[in-house]
Amino acid sequence: QENFSNKHANRGMTLEEDLNITNEYYLSIGKAVIHKKPTPVQIVNVSYPKRSAAIITEAYFKLASTTDYNGVYKGKYIDFEAKETKNKTSFPLNNFHAHQIEHMKKVDEQGGICFVILKFVYLDTIYFLEAKHLFYFWDNQFQNGRKSIPFMYIEENGIQIPLGFNPRVDYLSIIDNIYFSKGRINHD
Amino acid sequence: QENFSNKHANRGMTLEEDLNITNEYYLSIGKAVIHKKPTPVQIVNVSYPKRSAAIITEAYFKLASTTDYNGVYKGKYIDFEAKETKNKTSFPLNNFHAHQIEHMKKVDEQGGICFVILKFVYLDTIYFLEAKHLFYFWDNQFQNGRKSIPFMYIEENGIQIPLGFNPRVDYLSIIDNIYFSKGRINHD
Ligand SMILES: [Mg+2]
Ligand SMILES: [Mg+2]
Repeated sequence: QENFSNKHANRGMTLEEDLNITNEYYLSIGKAVIHKKPTPVQIVNVSYPKRSAAIITEAYFKLASTTDYNGVYKGKYIDFEAKETKNKTSFPLNNFHAHQIEHMKKVDEQGGICFVILKFVYLDTIYFLEAKHLFYFWDNQFQNGRKSIPFMYIEENGIQIPLGFNPRVDYLSIIDNIYFSKGRINHD
Repeated sequence: QENFSNKHANRGMTLEEDLNITNEYYLSIGKAVIHKKPTPVQIVNVSYPKRSAAIITEAYFKLASTTDYNGVYKGKYIDFEAKETKNKTSFPLNNFHAHQIEHMKKVDEQGGICFVILKFVYLDTIYFLEAKHLFYFWDNQFQNGRKSIPFMYIEENGIQIPLGFNPRVDYLSIIDNIYFSKGRINHD
């Protein structure tokens, strides 16, 4: 039964849509304040018609210099990127770009809680992976390492995120276990 | 001398420009990771010309549902809004909108460090004001309170931010004093 409703709730939803709904839920119950950042655009031309809203008539997509999601949970800074792949055996590193990795490394150095949420579309599974694992594979690819993170590595070193109705993708439950469980509270 | 170079450095700069340069500086020395969020736009039409970048041909400005700046400093979540006024005796509350105040209240409840940076353009002074003061005046205006925060209140309850060359608007020095000085480290 729960399995059915989970499948149903998530059918056809992208990871981004699921996360937006999850974050709205967290916000509504006062659990965390985490938002997706707006898509960065370079605005070139705007027209101001009479009696109606300004229209942007020329703009371009800019490459994001940070990750898509950030916010606050229990006073700590939360920062993550969410990506999906149709691959079944590994997660290709070209889903990320250098600026995002650089940003995540800086967040990590600053004591923020930094991770990625990875969805394997065909397996219908979503994993939480601490950023340090991504850094390892990212840096290693430039020393003739592989260009993707093996599924088995993610299965072993990541944590599968429970899917449900509300919250849909309960990634804060993972953060509770890793960062806020007894003896591992991280006051840096 | 320092006074001259300060004036010079800041001549003609908007508060936003000054803060962007300040944040870039903090980032470059590994002190904090704080960014301005992209302007939120609703994208309606995109054209994909051959051999060149996608062009957004119709889009609209959306009202921000959060503040403009957020990030991480010493592991803590930082969130603020920056505003300037040409008023000399008070800071009008209509510089903020209800969604932003609501957002700031939620950040505050979540233990984030939340504040506003207020610039009085004609006085060429910039103040750091903890969000709780803004909340007080904001809520009070709906009980027939005044529609602005008196300059004298800001002078007494805020902290003037030192201006310099690098960092230009050193608001983290204020945060160090308020949140990270001995005996007031805030591990919530
Ligand atoms: Mg993205
Ligand atoms: Mg703004």
